Amino acid sequence: MSQTSEPDVRPGEEAVELPAGFNAGVYFIGRIRTPWKTRAECPKNGRLTREICTVEVDPRYIAALDGIEKFPRIVVVYFMDQARRDLVRQVPKHLGEARGTFALRSPVRPNPIALSTVELVRVNGTKLEVIGLDCLDGTPLLDLKPHYETVDGAAPA
Amino acid sequence: MSQTSEPDVRPGEEAVELPAGFNAGVYFIGRIRTPWKTRAECPKNGRLTREICTVEVDPRYIAALDGIEKFPRIVVVYFMDQARRDLVRQVPKHLGEARGTFALRSPVRPNPIALSTVELVRVNGTKLEVIGLDCLDGTPLLDLKPHYETVDGAAPA
Repeated sequence: MSQTSEPDVRPGEEAVELPAGFNAGVYFIGRIRTPWKTRAECPKNGRLTREICTVEVDPRYIAALDGIEKFPRIVVVYFMDQARRDLVRQVPKHLGEARGTFALRSPVRPNPIALSTVELVRVNGTKLEVIGLDCLDGTPLLDLKPHYETVDGAAPA
Repeated sequence: MSQTSEPDVRPGEEAVELPAGFNAGVYFIGRIRTPWKTRAECPKNGRLTREICTVEVDPRYIAALDGIEKFPRIVVVYFMDQARRDLVRQVPKHLGEARGTFALRSPVRPNPIALSTVELVRVNGTKLEVIGLDCLDGTPLLDLKPHYETVDGAAPA
């Protein structure tokens, strides 16, 4: 789709027509509570803040948290439901030039799924206190996983 | 939901009734080609194999790959569409005891989204050759992201 048909695309950016329907569905299994109410307030990167955020899991899934307290780090998977999904080429301010969406960590992507590796501070029932998130308050939660450096860190050379 | 109402749950495992509907939808943006046709054939962990697998991206998104070739490692996000989604407590064979789903990397989870950090060997149009996957042939692709050790690796102590 050309830029002329997408007036809200900046120079150098490119949108595509997304498929007519979704291929699968996801459940929001909880919400993330952070101090940040607007994109502008969010830290640029979760490693730049020591704020404690709270991952609130739906009580339906409480048994799924059994054993998570043993892990010093977890991966928080969440859904950036405020982001548009049709940009394949973007011009991030910090780059100043166009780059493909899959070469960026931008929230704008066909499936706005984000990953953050965080420090797990405390588990209190269905509420997890963590350090290392940078998302908006109220962001829907998709999954939690134990972090393994041998799986999620740099692959062996 | 008690185990008696879920005859296909093993001792120590627990299923819940999932919500009546999904909260959001995802697009399958491509398919992953691997040598493995059954779960039994898949490596236990992507780091245990040097097989080259191919991530085939839908041509609709080709512009989104611009610049990805610069990254030695990428995160492949995919959907384990063969897995049941209702188990909150599972007994993995290698553990021999029950653990909560969010404390496991099992494919069985409310949102069967998997993450693999892989080595990017070569980009050929919409086909990416990678090392480090362990999933079934034909697995639907959800997203590709550049891997940053400072974001995806162990958080600072």
